[in-house]
Amino acid sequence: MKQFPDEFCDQLHDLMRWRRDVRHFHADRPVTDDLLEKVLEAIRLAPSVGLSEPWRIISVKSGAARQKALKNFQTANADALKGYSGDRAQKYAGLKLSGMVDAPVQLAVFCDDGTDKGAGLGAGTMPEARRYSVVSAVMNFWLAARAHGLGVGWVSIIDPAQMAVDLDVPESWALVAYLCVGWPIETSETPELEKVNWEKRDPLLAEIQER
Amino acid sequence: MKQFPDEFCDQLHDLMRWRRDVRHFHADRPVTDDLLEKVLEAIRLAPSVGLSEPWRIISVKSGAARQKALKNFQTANADALKGYSGDRAQKYAGLKLSGMVDAPVQLAVFCDDGTDKGAGLGAGTMPEARRYSVVSAVMNFWLAARAHGLGVGWVSIIDPAQMAVDLDVPESWALVAYLCVGWPIETSETPELEKVNWEKRDPLLAEIQER
Repeated sequence: MKQFPDEFCDQLHDLMRWRRDVRHFHADRPVTDDLLEKVLEAIRLAPSVGLSEPWRIISVKSGAARQKALKNFQTANADALKGYSGDRAQKYAGLKLSGMVDAPVQLAVFCDDGTDKGAGLGAGTMPEARRYSVVSAVMNFWLAARAHGLGVGWVSIIDPAQMAVDLDVPESWALVAYLCVGWPIETSETPELEKVNWEKRDPLLAEIQER
Repeated sequence: MKQFPDEFCDQLHDLMRWRRDVRHFHADRPVTDDLLEKVLEAIRLAPSVGLSEPWRIISVKSGAARQKALKNFQTANADALKGYSGDRAQKYAGLKLSGMVDAPVQLAVFCDDGTDKGAGLGAGTMPEARRYSVVSAVMNFWLAARAHGLGVGWVSIIDPAQMAVDLDVPESWALVAYLCVGWPIETSETPELEKVNWEKRDPLLAEIQER
Protein backbone atom coordinates (compact mmCIF):
# COMPACT_ATOMS: atom_id res chain seq x y z
CA MET A 1 0.00 0.00 0.00
CA LYS A 2 1.41 3.38 -0.99
CA GLN A 3 1.46 5.55 2.11
CA PHE A 4 2.49 9.09 2.99
CA PRO A 5 4.29 10.09 6.18
CA ASP A 6 2.72 12.31 8.86
CA GLU A 7 5.22 15.05 8.13
CA PHE A 8 3.98 15.19 4.55
CA CYS A 9 0.37 15.44 5.71
CA ASP A 10 1.33 18.43 7.86
CA GLN A 11 3.15 20.09 4.96
CA LEU A 12 0.17 19.49 2.70
CA HIS A 13 -2.05 21.21 5.23
CA ASP A 14 0.43 24.10 5.26
CA LEU A 15 0.35 24.23 1.47
CA MET A 16 -3.43 24.57 1.53
CA ARG A 17 -3.18 27.23 4.24
CA TRP A 18 -0.69 29.23 2.21
CA ARG A 19 -2.35 28.79 -1.19
CA ARG A 20 -3.73 32.16 -2.22
CA ASP A 21 -5.69 33.67 -5.09
CA VAL A 22 -2.89 35.93 -6.27
CA ARG A 23 -3.37 39.29 -8.01
CA HIS A 24 0.09 40.84 -7.53
CA PHE A 25 2.93 39.37 -9.57
CA HIS A 26 6.51 40.30 -10.38
CA ALA A 27 5.86 41.32 -13.98
CA ASP A 28 9.48 41.08 -15.04
CA ARG A 29 10.31 37.70 -13.51
CA PRO A 30 9.52 35.02 -16.09
CA VAL A 31 8.29 31.49 -15.43
CA THR A 32 10.59 29.04 -17.21
CA ASP A 33 9.07 26.57 -19.65
CA ASP A 34 10.57 23.71 -17.64
CA LEU A 35 8.84 24.78 -14.46
CA LEU A 36 5.55 25.49 -16.19
CA GLU A 37 5.58 22.06 -17.85
CA LYS A 38 6.30 20.41 -14.53
CA VAL A 39 3.36 22.15 -12.89
CA LEU A 40 1.05 21.49 -15.84
CA GLU A 41 1.67 17.78 -15.29
CA ALA A 42 -0.60 18.11 -12.27
CA ILE A 43 -3.51 18.63 -14.66
CA ARG A 44 -2.94 15.26 -16.28
CA LEU A 45 -3.07 13.67 -12.83
CA ALA A 46 -6.48 15.12 -11.98
CA PRO A 47 -9.62 12.99 -11.81
CA SER A 48 -12.02 13.20 -14.72
CA VAL A 49 -15.47 11.74 -15.12
CA GLY A 50 -15.28 8.54 -17.16
CA LEU A 51 -11.59 9.36 -17.73
CA SER A 52 -12.88 11.87 -20.26
CA GLU A 53 -10.01 14.35 -19.64
CA PRO A 54 -12.13 17.21 -21.00
CA TRP A 55 -9.60 19.95 -20.10
CA ARG A 56 -8.44 22.11 -23.02
CA ILE A 57 -5.82 24.73 -22.38
CA ILE A 58 -4.96 27.85 -24.32
CA SER A 59 -1.81 29.71 -23.38
CA VAL A 60 -2.70 33.36 -23.94
CA LYS A 61 0.60 34.82 -25.10
CA SER A 62 0.28 37.34 -27.88
CA GLY A 63 -0.28 41.02 -27.19
CA ALA A 64 -3.46 40.95 -29.25
CA ALA A 65 -4.96 38.00 -27.37
CA ARG A 66 -4.01 39.47 -24.00
CA GLN A 67 -5.51 42.81 -24.93
CA LYS A 68 -8.83 41.18 -25.78
CA ALA A 69 -8.82 39.17 -22.56
CA LEU A 70 -8.03 42.26 -20.51
CA LYS A 71 -10.78 44.23 -22.21
CA ASN A 72 -13.20 41.38 -21.49
CA PHE A 73 -12.32 41.56 -17.79
CA GLN A 74 -12.48 45.35 -17.66
CA THR A 75 -15.94 45.41 -19.24
CA ALA A 76 -17.29 42.72 -16.91
CA ASN A 77 -15.70 44.41 -13.93
CA ALA A 78 -17.21 47.80 -14.76
CA ASP A 79 -20.62 46.13 -15.10
CA ALA A 80 -20.16 44.37 -11.76
CA LEU A 81 -19.29 47.67 -10.05
CA LYS A 82 -22.64 49.09 -11.15
CA GLY A 83 -24.32 46.40 -9.00
CA TYR A 84 -22.90 47.85 -5.79
CA SER A 85 -23.60 51.12 -4.01
CA GLY A 86 -22.26 53.13 -1.11
CA ASP A 87 -19.48 51.55 0.93
CA ARG A 88 -19.54 48.30 -1.02
CA ALA A 89 -19.10 50.16 -4.32
CA GLN A 90 -16.19 52.16 -2.95
CA LYS A 91 -14.57 49.01 -1.61
CA TYR A 92 -15.19 47.10 -4.84
CA ALA A 93 -13.67 49.87 -6.94
CA GLY A 94 -10.52 49.71 -4.81
CA LEU A 95 -9.99 45.97 -5.21
CA LYS A 96 -7.41 44.54 -7.59
CA LEU A 97 -9.42 41.68 -9.06
CA SER A 98 -7.07 40.39 -11.71
CA GLY A 99 -3.35 40.13 -12.30
CA MET A 100 -3.85 40.23 -16.05
CA VAL A 101 -1.53 43.18 -16.61
CA ASP A 102 1.34 41.70 -14.61
CA ALA A 103 1.14 37.91 -14.85
CA PRO A 104 3.81 36.50 -17.19
CA VAL A 105 1.78 33.33 -17.85
CA GLN A 106 -1.94 33.38 -18.59
CA LEU A 107 -3.98 30.28 -19.28
CA ALA A 108 -7.54 30.07 -20.50
CA VAL A 109 -8.85 26.73 -19.30
CA PHE A 110 -11.82 25.29 -21.17
CA CYS A 111 -14.00 22.20 -20.89
CA ASP A 112 -14.83 20.29 -24.06
CA ASP A 113 -18.49 19.56 -23.34
CA GLY A 114 -18.71 17.57 -26.55
CA THR A 115 -15.84 15.15 -26.07
CA ASP A 116 -16.44 11.49 -26.91
CA LYS A 117 -13.64 10.44 -24.60
CA GLY A 118 -14.93 8.34 -21.72
CA ALA A 119 -18.01 7.38 -23.77
CA GLY A 120 -20.22 9.51 -21.54
CA LEU A 121 -19.63 7.41 -18.43
CA GLY A 122 -20.74 9.28 -15.31
CA ALA A 123 -21.97 12.29 -17.27
CA GLY A 124 -25.56 11.21 -17.94
CA THR A 125 -27.53 12.66 -15.04
CA MET A 126 -24.80 15.21 -14.24
CA PRO A 127 -23.20 16.39 -17.50
CA GLU A 128 -21.71 19.24 -15.45
CA ALA A 129 -19.34 16.59 -14.05
CA ARG A 130 -17.14 17.26 -17.09
CA ARG A 131 -16.67 20.89 -16.11
CA TYR A 132 -16.13 19.77 -12.53
CA SER A 133 -13.31 17.56 -13.80
CA VAL A 134 -11.69 20.63 -15.30
CA VAL A 135 -12.01 22.46 -11.98
CA SER A 136 -10.35 19.49 -10.27
CA ALA A 137 -7.47 19.86 -12.72
CA VAL A 138 -7.22 23.59 -12.00
CA MET A 139 -7.05 22.81 -8.29
CA ASN A 140 -4.27 20.25 -8.80
CA PHE A 141 -2.40 22.81 -10.89
CA TRP A 142 -2.92 25.53 -8.29
CA LEU A 143 -1.51 23.44 -5.45
CA ALA A 144 1.45 22.19 -7.51
CA ALA A 145 2.22 25.75 -8.61
CA ARG A 146 2.13 27.05 -5.04
CA ALA A 147 4.38 24.21 -3.87
CA HIS A 148 6.97 25.42 -6.38
CA GLY A 149 6.59 29.02 -5.20
CA LEU A 150 4.38 30.22 -8.05
CA GLY A 151 1.20 32.19 -7.48
CA VAL A 152 -2.05 31.51 -9.30
CA GLY A 153 -5.01 33.85 -9.62
CA TRP A 154 -8.37 32.65 -10.92
CA VAL A 155 -10.27 35.39 -12.76
CA SER A 156 -14.02 34.74 -13.05
CA ILE A 157 -15.07 38.32 -13.85
CA ILE A 158 -15.09 37.42 -17.52
CA ASP A 159 -17.75 36.98 -20.18
CA PRO A 160 -17.03 33.33 -21.00
CA ALA A 161 -18.77 33.34 -24.39
CA GLN A 162 -16.80 36.41 -25.52
CA MET A 163 -13.57 34.77 -24.37
CA ALA A 164 -14.35 31.68 -26.46
CA VAL A 165 -14.94 33.88 -29.51
CA ASP A 166 -11.82 35.99 -28.94
CA LEU A 167 -9.61 32.93 -28.55
CA ASP A 168 -11.28 31.22 -31.51
CA VAL A 169 -11.90 27.87 -29.83
CA PRO A 170 -14.25 25.11 -31.02
CA GLU A 171 -17.94 25.58 -30.26
CA SER A 172 -18.11 22.72 -27.80
CA TRP A 173 -15.53 24.35 -25.52
CA ALA A 174 -16.76 26.32 -22.50
CA LEU A 175 -14.49 28.56 -20.44
CA VAL A 176 -14.06 27.28 -16.91
CA ALA A 177 -11.22 29.44 -15.61
CA TYR A 178 -8.85 32.19 -16.67
CA LEU A 179 -5.63 31.72 -14.72
CA CYS A 180 -2.89 34.26 -14.10
CA VAL A 181 0.39 32.62 -13.14
CA GLY A 182 3.67 34.11 -11.98
CA TRP A 183 5.91 34.88 -9.03
CA PRO A 184 3.86 36.50 -6.29
CA ILE A 185 4.92 39.79 -4.69
CA GLU A 186 4.12 38.39 -1.26
CA THR A 187 2.91 35.22 0.41
CA SER A 188 0.23 35.15 3.06
CA GLU A 189 -2.01 32.90 5.11
CA THR A 190 -4.91 35.32 4.75
CA PRO A 191 -7.11 35.74 1.67
CA GLU A 192 -6.92 39.23 0.22
CA LEU A 193 -10.70 39.66 0.48
CA GLU A 194 -10.41 38.97 4.21
CA LYS A 195 -7.53 41.44 4.56
CA VAL A 196 -9.53 44.25 3.00
CA ASN A 197 -12.63 43.36 5.03
CA TRP A 198 -14.77 42.35 2.05
CA GLU A 199 -15.71 39.03 3.63
CA LYS A 200 -14.41 36.74 6.36
CA ARG A 201 -13.95 33.00 6.55
CA ASP A 202 -16.37 30.92 8.60
CA PRO A 203 -15.81 27.77 10.62
CA LEU A 204 -16.93 24.66 8.79
CA LEU A 205 -17.37 21.75 11.07
CA ALA A 206 -20.21 23.10 13.18
CA GLU A 207 -22.30 23.43 10.07
CA ILE A 208 -22.12 19.86 8.83
CA GLN A 209 -25.55 18.31 9.13
CA GLU A 210 -26.50 14.68 9.39
CA ARG A 211 -29.30 12.79 7.73
CA MET B 1 8.17 34.27 1.85
CA LYS B 2 6.66 30.93 2.80
CA GLN B 3 8.39 28.26 0.71
CA PHE B 4 8.17 24.51 0.30
CA PRO B 5 11.17 22.21 -0.13
CA ASP B 6 11.83 20.24 -3.33
CA GLU B 7 11.26 16.98 -1.52
CA PHE B 8 7.75 18.10 -0.65
CA CYS B 9 7.07 19.03 -4.28
CA ASP B 10 8.08 15.51 -5.29
CA GLN B 11 5.85 13.96 -2.63
CA LEU B 12 2.95 16.15 -3.73
CA HIS B 13 3.42 14.90 -7.27
CA ASP B 14 3.39 11.35 -5.89
CA LEU B 15 0.20 12.09 -3.98
CA MET B 16 -1.50 13.22 -7.17
CA ARG B 17 -0.20 10.15 -9.00
CA TRP B 18 -1.57 7.84 -6.31
CA ARG B 19 -4.88 9.62 -5.79
CA ARG B 20 -7.61 7.37 -7.10
CA ASP B 21 -11.37 7.40 -7.52
CA VAL B 22 -12.01 4.57 -5.10
CA ARG B 23 -14.92 2.12 -5.30
CA HIS B 24 -13.67 -0.71 -3.07
CA PHE B 25 -13.56 -0.04 0.66
CA HIS B 26 -13.06 -2.07 3.81
CA ALA B 27 -16.67 -1.92 4.95
CA ASP B 28 -15.90 -2.88 8.54
CA ARG B 29 -13.00 -0.52 9.14
CA PRO B 30 -14.40 2.76 10.46
CA VAL B 31 -13.04 6.24 9.89
CA THR B 32 -12.57 7.96 13.26
CA ASP B 33 -14.27 11.31 13.85
CA ASP B 34 -10.88 12.82 14.64
CA LEU B 35 -9.43 11.84 11.29
CA LEU B 36 -12.53 12.85 9.37
CA GLU B 37 -12.56 16.28 11.03
CA LYS B 38 -8.89 16.75 10.23
CA VAL B 39 -9.47 15.96 6.56
CA LEU B 40 -12.62 18.09 6.38
CA GLU B 41 -10.48 21.06 7.43
CA ALA B 42 -9.10 20.97 3.89
CA ILE B 43 -12.50 22.15 2.66
CA ARG B 44 -12.30 25.30 4.75
CA LEU B 45 -8.91 26.02 3.15
CA ALA B 46 -10.23 25.84 -0.41
CA PRO B 47 -10.61 28.91 -2.60
CA SER B 48 -14.09 30.30 -3.06
CA VAL B 49 -15.33 33.02 -5.36
CA GLY B 50 -15.69 36.28 -3.41
CA LEU B 51 -14.90 34.25 -0.27
CA SER B 52 -18.49 33.05 -0.54
CA GLU B 53 -17.70 29.60 0.93
CA PRO B 54 -20.82 28.13 -0.71
CA TRP B 55 -20.06 24.52 0.28
CA ARG B 56 -22.78 22.76 2.30
CA ILE B 57 -22.16 19.27 3.52
CA ILE B 58 -24.57 16.56 4.57
CA SER B 59 -23.17 13.48 6.24
CA VAL B 60 -25.40 10.67 4.99
CA LYS B 61 -25.51 8.36 7.99
CA SER B 62 -28.90 6.83 8.64
CA GLY B 63 -29.97 3.61 7.02
CA ALA B 64 -32.98 5.34 5.51
CA ALA B 65 -30.96 8.15 3.92
CA ARG B 66 -28.36 5.73 2.60
CA GLN B 67 -31.05 3.51 1.13
CA LYS B 68 -32.54 6.44 -0.78
CA ALA B 69 -29.11 7.52 -2.03
CA LEU B 70 -28.28 3.99 -3.15
CA LYS B 71 -31.61 3.67 -4.93
CA ASN B 72 -30.96 7.00 -6.65
CA PHE B 73 -27.63 5.68 -7.95
CA GLN B 74 -29.06 2.31 -8.98
CA THR B 75 -31.84 3.93 -10.98
CA ALA B 76 -29.49 6.36 -12.73
CA ASN B 77 -27.01 3.58 -13.38
CA ALA B 78 -29.66 1.30 -14.92
CA ASP B 79 -30.73 4.18 -17.17
CA ALA B 80 -27.14 4.84 -18.19
CA LEU B 81 -26.62 1.18 -19.09
CA LYS B 82 -29.48 1.44 -21.58
CA GLY B 83 -27.43 4.02 -23.50
CA TYR B 84 -24.73 1.47 -24.34
CA SER B 85 -24.85 -1.56 -26.59
CA GLY B 86 -22.67 -4.52 -27.49
CA ASP B 87 -19.20 -4.64 -25.94
CA ARG B 88 -19.59 -1.29 -24.25
CA ALA B 89 -22.80 -2.38 -22.55
CA GLN B 90 -21.21 -5.59 -21.33
CA LYS B 91 -18.21 -3.70 -20.03
CA TYR B 92 -20.39 -1.04 -18.39
CA ALA B 93 -22.52 -3.64 -16.64
CA GLY B 94 -19.38 -5.18 -15.17
CA LEU B 95 -18.04 -1.96 -13.68
CA LYS B 96 -18.32 -1.13 -10.01
CA LEU B 97 -19.29 2.52 -10.24
CA SER B 98 -19.96 3.36 -6.63
CA GLY B 99 -18.76 2.30 -3.22
CA MET B 100 -22.08 3.23 -1.64
CA VAL B 101 -22.69 -0.18 -0.11
CA ASP B 102 -19.25 -0.40 1.50
CA ALA B 103 -18.08 3.11 2.31
CA PRO B 104 -18.30 3.88 6.05
CA VAL B 105 -18.51 7.64 5.44
CA GLN B 106 -20.72 9.18 2.78
CA LEU B 107 -20.95 12.90 2.17
CA ALA B 108 -23.39 14.73 -0.07
CA VAL B 109 -21.69 17.96 -1.04
CA PHE B 110 -23.93 20.81 -2.15
CA CYS B 111 -23.46 24.35 -3.39
CA ASP B 112 -25.67 27.08 -1.99
CA ASP B 113 -26.34 28.98 -5.20
CA GLY B 114 -28.30 31.56 -3.24
CA THR B 115 -25.77 32.52 -0.61
CA ASP B 116 -25.30 36.23 0.15
CA LYS B 117 -21.80 35.60 1.44
CA GLY B 118 -19.20 37.34 -0.68
CA ALA B 119 -21.81 39.82 -1.90
CA GLY B 120 -21.77 38.29 -5.36
CA LEU B 121 -18.15 39.24 -6.06
CA GLY B 122 -16.79 37.28 -9.03
CA ALA B 123 -20.08 35.51 -9.67
CA GLY B 124 -21.75 38.01 -11.99
CA THR B 125 -20.77 36.81 -15.46
CA MET B 126 -19.93 33.31 -14.23
CA PRO B 127 -22.37 32.36 -11.44
CA GLU B 128 -21.15 28.78 -11.94
CA ALA B 129 -17.98 29.94 -10.15
CA ARG B 130 -19.79 29.16 -6.88
CA ARG B 131 -20.18 25.51 -7.83
CA TYR B 132 -16.58 25.51 -9.03
CA SER B 133 -15.57 26.70 -5.57
CA VAL B 134 -17.29 23.65 -4.13
CA VAL B 135 -15.41 21.40 -6.55
CA SER B 136 -12.15 23.04 -5.44
CA ALA B 137 -13.08 22.15 -1.89
CA VAL B 138 -13.81 18.55 -2.89
CA MET B 139 -10.40 18.36 -4.53
CA ASN B 140 -8.65 19.70 -1.43
CA PHE B 141 -10.55 17.14 0.66
CA TRP B 142 -9.69 14.34 -1.75
CA LEU B 143 -5.95 15.03 -1.64
CA ALA B 144 -5.89 15.48 2.14
CA ALA B 145 -7.83 12.23 2.58
CA ARG B 146 -5.46 10.31 0.33
CA ALA B 147 -2.44 11.74 2.16
CA HIS B 148 -3.87 10.21 5.36
CA GLY B 149 -4.44 6.87 3.61
CA LEU B 150 -8.18 7.28 3.05
CA GLY B 151 -9.82 6.59 -0.28
CA VAL B 152 -12.43 8.86 -1.83
CA GLY B 153 -14.87 7.96 -4.59
CA TRP B 154 -16.91 10.62 -6.39
CA VAL B 155 -20.27 9.31 -7.57
CA SER B 156 -21.87 11.39 -10.34
CA ILE B 157 -24.34 8.76 -11.56
CA ILE B 158 -26.99 10.40 -9.43
CA ASP B 159 -30.15 12.38 -10.10
CA PRO B 160 -29.11 15.57 -8.28
CA ALA B 161 -32.63 16.97 -7.90
CA GLN B 162 -33.89 13.72 -6.37
CA MET B 163 -30.94 13.69 -3.97
CA ALA B 164 -31.80 17.22 -2.84
CA VAL B 165 -35.39 16.14 -2.17
CA ASP B 166 -34.40 12.93 -0.40
CA LEU B 167 -31.97 14.73 1.89
CA ASP B 168 -34.45 17.56 2.46
CA VAL B 169 -32.05 20.42 1.81
CA PRO B 170 -32.96 24.08 1.11
CA GLU B 171 -34.10 24.90 -2.41
CA SER B 172 -31.05 26.99 -3.21
CA TRP B 173 -28.71 24.04 -2.67
CA ALA B 174 -27.52 22.07 -5.71
CA LEU B 175 -25.73 18.74 -5.45
CA VAL B 176 -22.16 18.96 -6.68
CA ALA B 177 -20.72 15.64 -5.52
CA TYR B 178 -21.64 12.49 -3.63
CA LEU B 179 -18.48 11.25 -1.93
CA CYS B 180 -17.79 7.78 -0.58
CA VAL B 181 -14.97 7.77 1.96
CA GLY B 182 -13.20 4.92 3.70
CA TRP B 183 -10.13 2.72 3.80
CA PRO B 184 -9.37 1.46 0.30
CA ILE B 185 -8.87 -2.25 -0.40
CA GLU B 186 -5.87 -1.44 -2.56
CA THR B 187 -3.79 1.49 -3.74
CA SER B 188 -2.75 2.00 -7.33
CA GLU B 189 -1.17 4.42 -9.74
CA THR B 190 -3.62 3.44 -12.47
CA PRO B 191 -7.23 4.59 -12.72
CA GLU B 192 -9.70 1.72 -12.56
CA LEU B 193 -11.26 2.73 -15.89
CA GLU B 194 -7.82 2.40 -17.48
CA LYS B 195 -7.24 -1.00 -15.85
CA VAL B 196 -10.46 -2.40 -17.29
CA ASN B 197 -9.79 -0.84 -20.69
CA TRP B 198 -12.75 1.54 -20.64
CA GLU B 199 -10.58 4.52 -21.52
CA LYS B 200 -6.91 5.47 -21.39
CA ARG B 201 -5.12 8.61 -20.30
CA ASP B 202 -3.69 10.95 -22.92
CA PRO B 203 -0.58 13.09 -22.83
CA LEU B 204 -1.38 16.72 -22.08
CA LEU B 205 1.42 19.01 -23.01
CA ALA B 206 1.44 18.42 -26.74
CA GLU B 207 -2.14 19.62 -26.91
CA ILE B 208 -1.70 23.01 -25.31
CA GLN B 209 -2.32 25.66 -27.95
CA GLU B 210 -1.12 29.22 -28.03
CA ARG B 211 -2.96 32.35 -29.02
